[in-house]
Formats: sequence, structure tokens, C-alpha cells
Amino acid sequence: MAGNSFGKVFTLTTFGESHGAAIGGVIDGCPAGLSIDFSQIDKQMSRRKPGQSSVTTSRKEDDLYEILSGVYEGVTTGTPIGFIIRNQDQKPGDYEKMKDVFRPSHSDFTYEVKYGLRDHRGGGRSSARETAARVFAGSIASQFLAHSGIKINAFVSQVGTVSLNKPYDQIDFAKTDDSLVRCPDKKTSDEMIGYIEELKKKGDSTGGIIQCVVSNVPAGLGDPVFDKLHADLSKAMLSINAVHGFEYGSGFASASMMGSAHNDEFSTDVAGKIITKTNRSGGIQGGISNGMDIYFNVAFKHVATILQKQNTVNKAGESTELEAAGRHDPCVVPRAVPIVEAMAALVLADHLLRQRLSKLKQ
Amino acid sequence: MAGNSFGKVFTLTTFGESHGAAIGGVIDGCPAGLSIDFSQIDKQMSRRKPGQSSVTTSRKEDDLYEILSGVYEGVTTGTPIGFIIRNQDQKPGDYEKMKDVFRPSHSDFTYEVKYGLRDHRGGGRSSARETAARVFAGSIASQFLAHSGIKINAFVSQVGTVSLNKPYDQIDFAKTDDSLVRCPDKKTSDEMIGYIEELKKKGDSTGGIIQCVVSNVPAGLGDPVFDKLHADLSKAMLSINAVHGFEYGSGFASASMMGSAHNDEFSTDVAGKIITKTNRSGGIQGGISNGMDIYFNVAFKHVATILQKQNTVNKAGESTELEAAGRHDPCVVPRAVPIVEAMAALVLADHLLRQRLSKLKQ
Amino acid sequence: MAGNSFGKVFTLTTFGESHGAAIGGVIDGCPAGLSIDFSQIDKQMSRRKPGQSSVTTSRKEDDLYEILSGVYEGVTTGTPIGFIIRNQDQKPGDYEKMKDVFRPSHSDFTYEVKYGLRDHRGGGRSSARETAARVFAGSIASQFLAHSGIKINAFVSQVGTVSLNKPYDQIDFAKTDDSLVRCPDKKTSDEMIGYIEELKKKGDSTGGIIQCVVSNVPAGLGDPVFDKLHADLSKAMLSINAVHGFEYGSGFASASMMGSAHNDEFSTDVAGKIITKTNRSGGIQGGISNGMDIYFNVAFKHVATILQKQNTVNKAGESTELEAAGRHDPCVVPRAVPIVEAMAALVLADHLLRQRLSKLKQ
Amino acid sequence: MAGNSFGKVFTLTTFGESHGAAIGGVIDGCPAGLSIDFSQIDKQMSRRKPGQSSVTTSRKEDDLYEILSGVYEGVTTGTPIGFIIRNQDQKPGDYEKMKDVFRPSHSDFTYEVKYGLRDHRGGGRSSARETAARVFAGSIASQFLAHSGIKINAFVSQVGTVSLNKPYDQIDFAKTDDSLVRCPDKKTSDEMIGYIEELKKKGDSTGGIIQCVVSNVPAGLGDPVFDKLHADLSKAMLSINAVHGFEYGSGFASASMMGSAHNDEFSTDVAGKIITKTNRSGGIQGGISNGMDIYFNVAFKHVATILQKQNTVNKAGESTELEAAGRHDPCVVPRAVPIVEAMAALVLADHLLRQRLSKLKQ
Repeated sequence: MAGNSFGKVFTLTTFGESHGAAIGGVIDGCPAGLSIDFSQIDKQMSRRKPGQSSVTTSRKEDDLYEILSGVYEGVTTGTPIGFIIRNQDQKPGDYEKMKDVFRPSHSDFTYEVKYGLRDHRGGGRSSARETAARVFAGSIASQFLAHSGIKINAFVSQVGTVSLNKPYDQIDFAKTDDSLVRCPDKKTSDEMIGYIEELKKKGDSTGGIIQCVVSNVPAGLGDPVFDKLHADLSKAMLSINAVHGFEYGSGFASASMMGSAHNDEFSTDVAGKIITKTNRSGGIQGGISNGMDIYFNVAFKHVATILQKQNTVNKAGESTELEAAGRHDPCVVPRAVPIVEAMAALVLADHLLRQRLSKLKQ
Repeated sequence: MAGNSFGKVFTLTTFGESHGAAIGGVIDGCPAGLSIDFSQIDKQMSRRKPGQSSVTTSRKEDDLYEILSGVYEGVTTGTPIGFIIRNQDQKPGDYEKMKDVFRPSHSDFTYEVKYGLRDHRGGGRSSARETAARVFAGSIASQFLAHSGIKINAFVSQVGTVSLNKPYDQIDFAKTDDSLVRCPDKKTSDEMIGYIEELKKKGDSTGGIIQCVVSNVPAGLGDPVFDKLHADLSKAMLSINAVHGFEYGSGFASASMMGSAHNDEFSTDVAGKIITKTNRSGGIQGGISNGMDIYFNVAFKHVATILQKQNTVNKAGESTELEAAGRHDPCVVPRAVPIVEAMAALVLADHLLRQRLSKLKQ
Repeated sequence: MAGNSFGKVFTLTTFGESHGAAIGGVIDGCPAGLSIDFSQIDKQMSRRKPGQSSVTTSRKEDDLYEILSGVYEGVTTGTPIGFIIRNQDQKPGDYEKMKDVFRPSHSDFTYEVKYGLRDHRGGGRSSARETAARVFAGSIASQFLAHSGIKINAFVSQVGTVSLNKPYDQIDFAKTDDSLVRCPDKKTSDEMIGYIEELKKKGDSTGGIIQCVVSNVPAGLGDPVFDKLHADLSKAMLSINAVHGFEYGSGFASASMMGSAHNDEFSTDVAGKIITKTNRSGGIQGGISNGMDIYFNVAFKHVATILQKQNTVNKAGESTELEAAGRHDPCVVPRAVPIVEAMAALVLADHLLRQRLSKLKQ
Repeated sequence: MAGNSFGKVFTLTTFGESHGAAIGGVIDGCPAGLSIDFSQIDKQMSRRKPGQSSVTTSRKEDDLYEILSGVYEGVTTGTPIGFIIRNQDQKPGDYEKMKDVFRPSHSDFTYEVKYGLRDHRGGGRSSARETAARVFAGSIASQFLAHSGIKINAFVSQVGTVSLNKPYDQIDFAKTDDSLVRCPDKKTSDEMIGYIEELKKKGDSTGGIIQCVVSNVPAGLGDPVFDKLHADLSKAMLSINAVHGFEYGSGFASASMMGSAHNDEFSTDVAGKIITKTNRSGGIQGGISNGMDIYFNVAFKHVATILQKQNTVNKAGESTELEAAGRHDPCVVPRAVPIVEAMAALVLADHLLRQRLSKLKQ
């Protein structure tokens, strides 16, 4: 009800503020018998964490997770997987001066109104630190999906005004992490890095776009009405901090296309499997996967904190100025790649399990 | 679980196929004591129905709803509101020849895989006829919202390649329905109508964009993590047939903006109420409404059915040709305006009620 | 949220008041491919309906259901099954005089407080007429369960002070419907009938106990913590009008038994299948079915309406007298047998499907 | 879905096995602004913990909880309250020999079938240790309820064959904890203690009954159909380990009572408030509280573990003998008193919040 849980069958509930004792969560509905590869979790956690490269914040967090239940001798038991990630590197003093001031485009004001009070240290629940719990859970979901051959690859396709113009099926995902900004095209990546370094000098920030491709999805996942597969993906993505837009398949461009140019004709591949010749539908028709690649774009605005003086008001409604100091990301988008992958994995895992329920005989 | 319900507190469950006996639904969680204005329901139903103008399909449906429960002497009783809309104008014969053929970009194929069988008449659950139930329920939700002063206005801002370029706050919503295509700008509207008439002649179709503005929303609605207000709006919109994209506030454009140019500074209005000077946040910060207007764009592709010959395969995977005949919309976007409003109303009504739960004392 | 839905995977949502246009419901989550035997639905509906024998009310309702969706050519399609049952035999005048008076042990008063208003005609949602929708849905659930061999048999084991004292495994379920009171023991049944006829003469009423046995349940159904199989059965039963108690296996008697006398030792049957030698656990251990018969008792109080003068108050809190007239059941328990079976079927169908989700490989 | 969450608005999700790193949970939906009295939590935790008196197990657990989020400076923030209780006193060796043997009336066998594997150490999720998380959460729910004046008092009314025969309204709850067995009647309490001590010598165990009384409940809580207040209480109680039965108000005895003797006539108290003269309805009519005391009985069987030799089978289905050693409770019922109170508090808190949603105007 209070919106801290995600999914219907494979579910994640998260808790924790950035400046409390710990963040954490409960994965419920992960089937019994899944062998966990902890190194994969570590890798994804490390791709998300602050301080990983020169183009991100210099703030360091170790993001050490502890699994408390649901995994016995490295294998899931079917019972809920409780986990925590202790908070470190807390300097409440940093935030004391912002106690009564509403930071522009942060959730300080909206929290105050919603709850009548707030933990002013670091954004509370709206801190992006919460996404560490998602990445942990998403990694387990990905490992579950891998048993059905499903693979998820996200990468940065735009940073500020620098964008990659390549169709999704010409991307070499193996190169994504060769790039500090997780753009799998060397030339574009270099431009993006240059762009971010300029912003960093000015204490400014920018947004970007992440594209995500889900391959090897069996046809039949998703529901026809409210829980269309792309509707659930959309909610998943928009629930990530700073995301302002989502499109799948031909996306916004489809608005100006004609039906005769847009429809994906059916055909068969050499093995006789039914496929579509083109994939403007983005692998989903009528809300249900058709076996082609699913691909979508996620638009991120800049992070709200910038190291420049801004006008705002305090709790009493009086005008005041605010100038953030400290360590902040000029562009959070590269770190958001594993978050996008995690949320996609949670949606797919949920629907993969739900599909077990659709027919009289399995 | 099977994705036929929407909302957590103010909920809508729908049922029904386009070619069965009836479609319908159950609204559960509408508070007791709401006087229903049936003319408002009629108006919204009529804005959605086929055959309403020369630029839409000539197929006519009367969409007469019958309320079966939950309303006594014109007032809601707090118990579930069951309603049905009988199907008429059924010509199953029209569909017989498509029984074993998968129509391009329709859900015929994905249904067959998902369920192992399907009612081939007219798309089953994926028929846009299901949205009549949403419009009915959304109208009741809107009337509930009106008690808190909340207003929802959607309009067509793009049809094919013709688009309206005006900021949301310069739109005169009163003019929306003066236009056959529900574009509140006369000149753009005329261009859109011309564009659609050309397509109609060719048996082709196109998509478009609907913009929606929600005004007078109290600050505090929405949840900070998974159920961010915009995340729920996004899912609501992507659950509408043919929608391929969603963006709110500065949307996809935010990806290339710098923080210094994008942040919304806080200020106060003449009455001392805290406002933001600009509204790039789209009325939502950290997932929670801040009291400013909420606005978002919804991208629709064309409807899948076109009156041209297309290649496809049948159930056996054999190549075949398909040429639809009959009555179909060249551009469904004008009829989707009340659907967008309805889904927005359902999201807002849900969160308006949920906000009653956030504090110890109301 | 508002408590009109039951189940998590195989779900039933009901709507409708006894004196509105219709009652009905939506079954969501019934797998595709189930052939419906309509005569079984008819049979269960007919066992529940009023006016079926001399020991029940003489009020007649036809309880004709209409299936609106989700079933095509007699087979479920996997989409929601919407259904309605029109209300007939309405004489609102009967209830006019009770408009402002709170009938003792009815929900008139509690409704008025809960909702601030009420449809005073015949109890609104709390009318037992709502259970017709449950029997309809339960019959479909039973047919789904039958594919796994699961059988549900309920019978009357007590009426007022007359009780049947036979262990559940010595009951011949085939004889249940030979008895007007659905007690499968001729001698006890005759006593019960005599008892009820005496009460009827006095305008009085009484309660009773229904025992229910679920056979051929595969081991593994149910969840270990909150959704223990017996916890869900208990809620299902207590949600039936007039039910005041539930016990399973050794039930209340277990409170005074010693562990050494109560534990069920494991053994194997001739086929090598693991069984328990005794079944005091009622077929459920740790909330999960163990493959033995599940059995439980459900205690019903009398119906609240009696044809005698009673003291009460009106809306204004003033003392008044009330004497119901008309047609009422002296003992509703025989008619509740199919309701108990229906609710048990809904619980079992839900958990049978949920069990598909528990392991990595099905 | 997997049954590890309870409640719809005020929700508790628990995780953890008795022999993993920790148990814990997440409370979601507790309103912001509630000042937590930690000593009340401590008190309830201590009433549940093992080793508290000579009539319970001598195994000691400290049950130290750590709150990780959702409480700031002693006040709830409206965000999820994550908490953990570390496991101590683990001697896995104790359980090694039971690895392949199914203990009678334990869930070893049913777990093995359900999940295909199990953590054999101490019962996994079905260990009563999980209830520590419920007591923690229930104490916070109780403190929320106290703001509306609602009080919950449970006590032991039967141990084995020794029972207390006093109407609920003649009980002095202040005396409950004067008794080692939590029976507020000195004479009966002494008999119960004697009874348990005899069993302890024999290595045997027994069950009992807990009665619970909820006072000062405002009229209007509960829903009329599936979520009747007593239905939710019933599920809550049956979800507690070893519970085999539930009855409220006149309970099973109502089955043999006549309507004329059972109905509760309405009247007014000296202040003009509408009350019932008697309270056989147990404070609930039509599933909704009527303002009178709610009272109910919960029947517990003995704990499954007894210190006597028993016959059973192992995984391979071969006959074997088992004799548990160690420290076990001869009668767990006194320790279950705070668990019953906790589960009742969770149900009431959920419905108290839900009632905020029932009317157009609050």
C-alpha cells in the first residue's frame, strides 16, 4: 500500500534511509533451488556504487550486503531472502544546515507535506542509495532468468547533448564496461566523458538516456490489460530516481509513423519458428512478449543537487539562498545502468513466474 | 495477479471481450456518499465511442452502461460498483477468416502462445473496447477528485507529423472539443484533420501524442519509492492500447539539459503558499506532488489494423496474405483523450485516498 | 482493499446487494483450457437457493446466472470470467418499515456507522444472497481441482442440539443429499428435521455445524507463515454469514490432549507413499498439506431474523419494538453446505496454482 | 504471494529462519508521527521469549531487536520500519541427526515436498522463533491503536484439562502476569502450573486455550464480505504455530442456541450511545465492529516436539525411531499470549486505517 514493494509473484520490498543504520529488503517469491553466484551480485553492486570512476562522485560506499535468510548453502530455499546493507560514511553535520531549507527539485518539501515531518539527513527514502537494494535483488532475479536463457543488457546511449546513434541490434554489449560512462561505442564514449568533465568543473550536472535490451524472452510473458509487459517495465523505470520518460520499440517516433510503414509482418526463421521481419513492436504485442528482443529507452534528468548557488525558501516560506558543498555526481547515468537492468530483471522474473499460471496444464 | 485490476485503494477490475455478451467491471474502494452526475459519465463515454465523427471509424456502438450495484438513489454506498456494457453490432463472420491467421502487430500470435487457445473474434481482451469500462470508472473517479478541486484535461498535441507547439499553460481546454480531433488550436486542428483524411483514403493509419494536465492537485500525493506518482501514471498510460511512450515534466528533453538550467527554484505566491517559479518537475518531486500542475505526454502508435494487403503467417507457420476489410480508425488518438483522462483520474483518486493513511492524525 | 476480493492467484471479486439490479462477480486467474460442466454449476446453485425444501424458507429465487466473458465455446480462455445473477422477487415495501430501525444482530447499525448511509433494503452487501456468487465461482474452482483429483465434500454434522457423532472417514458422502438437512446419517437427519420443524412453528431459528472433508490433496499446498493452508481456510469460512467458529483436525479438543497421544507418526502405505498412521493434524502440518485428508468444522449461529417480537432502537437511539414478518429460514445450515464447499474450493484452487511457483523447475 | 506478508494497509512482512543469521521484518504503512515507547516493545518481547519461567523451556534467547529504518528520534517517519533480531544459541549439531528424518507432526516432510529441499536446522520458517518478529510489530501496532483508546488483553483460559470458567467481562487483566502461566485467576493458575510440571517430568506436552478481549473499539471497523473483522482475526490466529481452532462471541456454542435466546437487543447507555444489552455477537455484526468488546478464543495443540521415543520414516521412506533430546516447552501457551495480542493488534491497526477510506468526507 505504502509503495515500498514491487512485483506480484517475484516481489521486492525495500526499507531504509540513506542516513539510518542500514538499508535493506526482502525478496519474496524467488523459487527454491536457485544456486546463487555471489560474484555476479558483487559485480552489479560495484557498477552502481559511488566513487567508481573519475566521472562520478568521489564519495565512497562499500555497499557490503549481508544475506540474513532464504539462502542455505548457497541455494535459495523458497523462503524470503532478507538482506541488509549497512550505511557508512555518514556525516550528519553536512546536512544540518539544510534542516529547514527546501533544496530545489529535491523531495524535501513534498516529504514535509506528505508526512508532516521528515528525516532531513540526505533525502530519506528518496535517496538513490535505496537503489542498492534493487540492484542486489535484481541480480538474483537475473540469475533466475538466466535459467530460461533470458539476458538483459543496458548501456548509456546519451549524456547531455552527446548521443549514440546506432540501432540496438548493432551494439556490442561486451564493450559497455570498457567505457567509464558505459557507452559501448568508443568515440561517443570519449565525447561523453569530455562533456561530463566540463560540467564537473562548473559544478553543474546533466542527464542522459539509457537503452536496455532484453534477449531470448520466450513468447507469452505479460498480461493483456493493465499489466502489459511494457506497462510494468515503464512503471519500473519511472520508479528510478530522476527518470522522466520511457519509450519502447518505436516509442515516441511511432506517433508520426504510418501503419503501412510500421507494422511488423510475421514470418518464420530457418528453424520454422514464428518471428517478425522487423521489430518496431519492441518484442511486445498486445502487452505480451512475442519472442523478439525487447528494447526500451529511459530518460534521466540530471541529479537535483548542483554545486552552485540557488534561490529557495525555508519551512517558514521565507526566501533564502542555498549552495550545496561536497561530493556529488555531475552525471549519474552511467551508475544507473545496473539499476535499469535490475528493475528490468524484476519485471521479467515476475512475469516469467506468472506465466506458469496461465494454462490448465503446464 | 492476472492483471485485470488497477489501483490499490480505489480499484477497477474489468472483464469482457469485444465479441462476448458484455464487457464490464467492478469499482471497489469508492467512498460512500458521492453523488453521481450521470450526464458526466455519458459525456465521457460518448467522447470515446466509435463512429462519433468523420475522422473516426464508422462502426457504431452505443456503449450503454448499466450500474448493477453500489449506487443507491444516485449516491455511492461504499460497496463495490458493478457495471456492464452489452456488446452489440457483432458480426462474428467478419472474423472467421482470420481464425488461423496472425494479423501483423496484433496480439493474435502472443495470445495463442500465452493461453494455448484464444477467442479469435476481434482481439478478445486486447480489443480497445475494454477501455469503455475504464472511461466509465474514470468518470466516477473524476467526480470524486472534483470534491478536492482536482481537474484533469487531456488534448491531442500531435497527429502523425502535425504537432501543436504550445506550452501546456497556454492551452484553453474549453476549446478541445470544438475540434474533431480534440486539438484546442484551430489552425493545428485543421491541419490534423486534413492529414487524417488523406490517410483514410489510402486505407492507412497513423499515431499521435496526447498531452494531459492535472490541476489543483494538493501537495503530498504519491509515494517515494516504487509507487511514485509519475511511475503510477506511466503504467496507467502504457496500459492503454497502442501507447509506446510516456514522459512527464521536461521529459526526454531533460536528458540533455543542465542542472543549473533545469532546477525549479522554490518561492511563494501572493498568498504565501510555497510554489516553484518554473515547473520542469511537472508538479512531482521525489515521486510526490508539490502542488504545481502535473503534465505529461503519451505517445500512441497507429492502430494495427490497416486496410492494405500485408504478409503474415498462419498457425501452422505457413506464409499467407491478409487484407482487412471493414471499418477501422485511421487515427484513434482523438478518441483516446477520454481514456487518458480516465486512467489519470484512477491514479489520482487512488493516491488521494492513500494520502489519508500517511499521518498519525488526519 | 475494501474486502470484496478473495484469493491471490485464483481470485473472486463479488459485487451486488440483495435488492439492487443484480449480484455478480469476476473470477480472475482461472487458467485457460478448462472445459466447464454447466450442470455442476447448476447443481451447486440449486443446493444453495432458497425455497428448496420444507425445512428452509419458502422464498423462491431462481438464481439464474449469466456468464459474460472468459468462457468461449464452453472452455475458459484465461481471461476474467464476469458473471451476473439478476435479482428477482423484490418487494422493497417489506423493508420500508425497517428503514430507521436497527434489527437485532443484523448489520444495520454497523453499516450506518461505517458508511454514514446505507441501502436499508434487505441487508445490502451483508445479505446471504452474495454467497450465490461464491457458489458459482466455487463450482468453477472445484472443476479446476477435479483435474488434480481433489474432491470436496461438506455435510451437516449438527443442527441445534442434535449432532452426528461419527469420524469423518466413516461418512458416506453419497448420502448427503438424500437428506433434506444434508446430514448423511438417516437417523440423525430425521432428528434434525424434527428439531427444525418444531422451531419453525415457534418462529424461532437455530444454528449448526458443517464438517468438510477435502480428499486427494497433493502434499505441498499452503505456505509456512501467514498463508498457512488452514489459516486461509479459516478466513474463508469465517467470511461466510453467521459463522462463529472454525477448527481443523483435532481442533478445540487438541487443547486438552497430550503430545504423546496426539502426534501423527509417519509411515508408508502399500505403494511406498509416505503417510501418517493417524490424522489428528487434519492433513496439514506447518501450514502445508501432507497428502492426508483435510477436514474441518464450521460453526454457524442461527440467522439473525426471527419471527418474534424483539426490543431495539431506531436511528435516533429511541427504544422501539420490531417484529419481522415474512419468509425466513429456521435453520440456514443445510443451504450453507455448498457455500462451505465453494469457499474451500477457492482456497484450494488458489494454493494449487501457487504451488506452481515454489520451485526453480516445475 | 508467498505468504510472508500480513495486512493490507498496516502490513508486516517477515523473513528469517531459526538457525540463519537473523530473523526480521518490515512494517509498512505505519503512519508518520507515532512516538515509540521502546519499553513496551521490550516488555512484549520478553513475555514471548523462551526461558522466562520454570514452566517453559530452559533455552534462552535474548531477542534483541535492532530498528534499521523508519524511526527517527523515536518517532515514526511514515517510511518502512525495517528491523532484525539476530539469532544466537545456535547448535546446528543438535539437528544434524534429524537431517533425513521426518519428525512426527513437524513440517519437515511437507517442506521437503513443497520446496524440493529444506534447511533442516530447527524447522526453518515454521519455527516459532518467527513470531518474535510478529510481537515486535504487534507492539508498534498496539501503540498506534492506543491513540484511539483501543486496548488488547489476552490470557490463558485453559491448559490441558484445566480450564478457567469465567465470563470475559469478569476478568481482571491486571493479574494476568502475576501468574507463571498467564491465567488471571490464582486458583486455576496454580492447577495449571501443577498440571504442566507433571507433564514436564514425563517429557510430554499439552495444549490450551487463550482468550483475547479487545476493548474500546470504535464501531465501523471491518468489511462486510470477505474481510469481515472476525474473518481477518481468525486468519491471524490460525497463522500462529500450533493453533487448531478459533471462535468469537458465542462461538461453537452458538450452533446449538436458538435465535430467540441469542440475539443481542439494541439499547442505549446512560450517555445515549447505542449499545447492545448482551454481547453474544462478540462485538462484531455483519463483519463490522459495533462498539462492544470483541472477544475470541484460540485453541492451541501441544508443540510437536516431545522428549519420548516415536516411530517415523526417513527421506527414503524407511521406518526409523526418533527420540528428541534437549530443551523444549511442555506447554507453549503462556508464551503465546503476547503473540495473540500482537496478531490482534495487526488486524485492528489495519482496519482502523482502512476505515479512513470509507466515506467521502472524513
